[in-house]
Amino acid sequence: MESKASIKEQIRVQTEVISTLKAQKASQEQIDKELSKLLQLKAQLGGEDDDDEDKHSFVLKTPKGTRDFNPKQMAIREKVFDIIVSCFKRHGAETIDTPVFELKETLMGKYGEDSKLIYDLKDQGGELLSLRYDLTVPFARYLAMNKITNIRRYHIAKVYRRDNPAMTRGRFREFYQCDFDVAGHYDPMIPDAECVRIVHEILSKVGVGDFRIKVNDRRLLDGMFAVCGVPEEKFRTVCSSVDKLDKAPWQDVRAEMVNEKGVAPKTADQIGAYVSKRGGKDLAEELLRDPKLAQNEQAQEGLKDMKLLFEYLQLFKVTDKVVFDLSLARGLDYYTGVIYEAVLIQPQGAGEEGVAVGSVAGGGRYDYLVGMFDPKGKKVPCVGVSIGIERLFSIMEQKTENSAEKVRTTETQVLVASAQKDLLEERLKLVAELWDAGIKAEVVYKANPKLLNQLQYCEETGIPLVAILGEQELKDGVVKLRCVASREEVEVSRAQLVAEVNRRAPPQQRC
Amino acid sequence: MESKASIKEQIRVQTEVISTLKAQKASQEQIDKELSKLLQLKAQLGGEDDDDEDKHSFVLKTPKGTRDFNPKQMAIREKVFDIIVSCFKRHGAETIDTPVFELKETLMGKYGEDSKLIYDLKDQGGELLSLRYDLTVPFARYLAMNKITNIRRYHIAKVYRRDNPAMTRGRFREFYQCDFDVAGHYDPMIPDAECVRIVHEILSKVGVGDFRIKVNDRRLLDGMFAVCGVPEEKFRTVCSSVDKLDKAPWQDVRAEMVNEKGVAPKTADQIGAYVSKRGGKDLAEELLRDPKLAQNEQAQEGLKDMKLLFEYLQLFKVTDKVVFDLSLARGLDYYTGVIYEAVLIQPQGAGEEGVAVGSVAGGGRYDYLVGMFDPKGKKVPCVGVSIGIERLFSIMEQKTENSAEKVRTTETQVLVASAQKDLLEERLKLVAELWDAGIKAEVVYKANPKLLNQLQYCEETGIPLVAILGEQELKDGVVKLRCVASREEVEVSRAQLVAEVNRRAPPQQRC
Repeated sequence: MESKASIKEQIRVQTEVISTLKAQKASQEQIDKELSKLLQLKAQLGGEDDDDEDKHSFVLKTPKGTRDFNPKQMAIREKVFDIIVSCFKRHGAETIDTPVFELKETLMGKYGEDSKLIYDLKDQGGELLSLRYDLTVPFARYLAMNKITNIRRYHIAKVYRRDNPAMTRGRFREFYQCDFDVAGHYDPMIPDAECVRIVHEILSKVGVGDFRIKVNDRRLLDGMFAVCGVPEEKFRTVCSSVDKLDKAPWQDVRAEMVNEKGVAPKTADQIGAYVSKRGGKDLAEELLRDPKLAQNEQAQEGLKDMKLLFEYLQLFKVTDKVVFDLSLARGLDYYTGVIYEAVLIQPQGAGEEGVAVGSVAGGGRYDYLVGMFDPKGKKVPCVGVSIGIERLFSIMEQKTENSAEKVRTTETQVLVASAQKDLLEERLKLVAELWDAGIKAEVVYKANPKLLNQLQYCEETGIPLVAILGEQELKDGVVKLRCVASREEVEVSRAQLVAEVNRRAPPQQRC
Repeated sequence: MESKASIKEQIRVQTEVISTLKAQKASQEQIDKELSKLLQLKAQLGGEDDDDEDKHSFVLKTPKGTRDFNPKQMAIREKVFDIIVSCFKRHGAETIDTPVFELKETLMGKYGEDSKLIYDLKDQGGELLSLRYDLTVPFARYLAMNKITNIRRYHIAKVYRRDNPAMTRGRFREFYQCDFDVAGHYDPMIPDAECVRIVHEILSKVGVGDFRIKVNDRRLLDGMFAVCGVPEEKFRTVCSSVDKLDKAPWQDVRAEMVNEKGVAPKTADQIGAYVSKRGGKDLAEELLRDPKLAQNEQAQEGLKDMKLLFEYLQLFKVTDKVVFDLSLARGLDYYTGVIYEAVLIQPQGAGEEGVAVGSVAGGGRYDYLVGMFDPKGKKVPCVGVSIGIERLFSIMEQKTENSAEKVRTTETQVLVASAQKDLLEERLKLVAELWDAGIKAEVVYKANPKLLNQLQYCEETGIPLVAILGEQELKDGVVKLRCVASREEVEVSRAQLVAEVNRRAPPQQRC
């Protein structure tokens, strides 16, 4: 250990170094590096040096694009998770879990251009690892590894993307995904339709306003590109241009296709005519009669499935929110058939159409992904959907803040209190009795707290009941049970206390 | 894209390279590297090359020290979590969440020798990040960052340690911790005693057999080292020797102290006499009368608190499982007062004492950790305990495997089936009706499944009811409701179906 004086001297010098760097307008990185040294020196001092708050508090943060959840936020988050998990269970899904990191090679070659957003772990000897980018690739790895050919599973877990965070809009570098997937050889479009139904159920229950679920098919997109004259090797790159249509106008997307991707103007115009189409089952039927698309087998398959999908969605009573949208493309490489995306709709003035305010769910069919992991390339067809909880959560949080409703962050039924001194031991005994009986109970951690403070604590935290002990109550074998809201007090025998607490403040249900 | 022939040729060459390396007994790392190249080549082929299963499947794994959880394991895991969360809520705790990674500097200087086990993220530009090593340091960072001086919170999340995994014994590199902590200035030992009570409640409820909760105090340890003649700068290193006493005999620990850490033999022997002591409140009283320890203020403070702790534990009725154990040291640097560790006890032959089979919970008081993050070094005293769920989970899993009880992995109440062909649409309509009514229901994803297969599916997955549709039932507006276990069938009107399903197979509760 170095002496305190020596450390203090080093801190003085280091503080000067930083001032100089700032004066020289040095790079933030360089300043941060020196600040970090300063912090370490101060940590050695145990925080005794306190004249430099700003610089010190600098590192008191979570990493870029991440956040903590405080108890209130957690209470809201749990509510949203409960809605989602209940829905997945209603549809007979099991759940699995996988590690937060995978072998780097497991993730390689699955995400196209987005691979650059993968977080790698430092090579500290041993395997090369990366944080998972989604839950779909780990799911496919899990199926191939365990030779599972049939499963309907949900998985709720955090994923990681080194994206440019837009935290106010609910975009983070660490965020939850809630995935529902069905693996197995089945008759066409039945699980696919169930995925749409699930998105419909969840978005309706969470209550985040109006929404639309766009659907399309990768085979139709490819077939359409082919009949418009796009060469096969350009399908993916043209597809990723089309994918930008939710954020950019067609003229910009067209310019990108023609100028950057070398698509012939005539071809681009033909694509433009197709991707402007919206509809339902009627559109699938119209396109099945389209003479150009009739020449392409892939397009025909995609269209037949779209038609069938809408028939099932009618039976599932969800067509009110579903749109067959030929401009939907989805960025990821692994999709092979139907693709989905749910967007929230901001209502506009009367008579005007609502405006999409960002994606809250997405998914599709990926029939070849598991085969990429299987030693024999054995295919396990899959279809699934991923709910983007963060944006839903942000909306719910906003709603709660705007409402008068107070969110409780604990479920405590009763506080064991006393009005007199020297009753700590009796309070501890009683609270233990209540715990034994399964009652959610607290005591204030003070030997002699004031009754007023104990009551105030209940008001602040929403504890509905107070069990008050005094010398007289102890002698009589009773407890004074007070309702915090009404201030009404009743005497209850010790033997009756548990039943009385449960009657007056029933234990909160988790779901 | 390269041609398939060219890739196949590369695969042939690469396969030879690996054979040669194996023949030369090259390092596994080198072989793995070449195998990974081989895999990538095969992935490009889309799995068409299938004569090399062994080598290909090699990378189908989770990273070292991690594992997947299948649906059965998840069902057991959820059960254990529910017990733990219920306990935390019974004690009035709120919950928070923090990111899986922190700024590297947030973790620096908190874990002593264990720092080498921290996983760092690769520097991909931007901040230097590390995966969290525990939940305590992020909690302290959270408190300091948000200037919170009072909270009782639980946090259940995964932590990461680059340790040597012993997976059969429930030691992993990725594992859950379930933490309960109380921050705030309170009267001594009240929250500390509640932490012990919580460990007692959880271990009793999970039902993992006998256990002991060892308690000790860091101040007592330091005071004892001082009166035995250990110089202050060697306290931490001697402490980490003592910490090994749960795995090694005293003679080995003594040798390490004397030979490696330069402790005088006489000093070591005096330490040896102390650390062999076990007891309860009586031991605290005995040591309070110890003339040597009487000279050390720290030791006195620790002993007084130990005595008080046992008084409260008596009121909490948990002293049956608690041992004041002077050999308990705990490795982490941040503890400042009482420390805990819970161990499971393997019963031995009659009359013999049980044997400890590893730690399942640990914790203690850390009064200075939050101050290390506060710009003004403002202290927030904290005490907490962490439940090591993995070992509990392994035991529960073993118990379930040994028992005849079948674990259900879904909660489906009813399967909508049909005995006749061409009723897919009617099945989909009915299942949607049930979902609308909140019933957990499934259909088989086939257009024309055999009734036998549908019934068999129920047997396998434990679905208790089948709602069978046929032409006649549709005409009559009824459904045949079959109980899978008893094979009994009743006709129920469509209007009564929901009520009847809920009556015969009540929805499972989550908790």
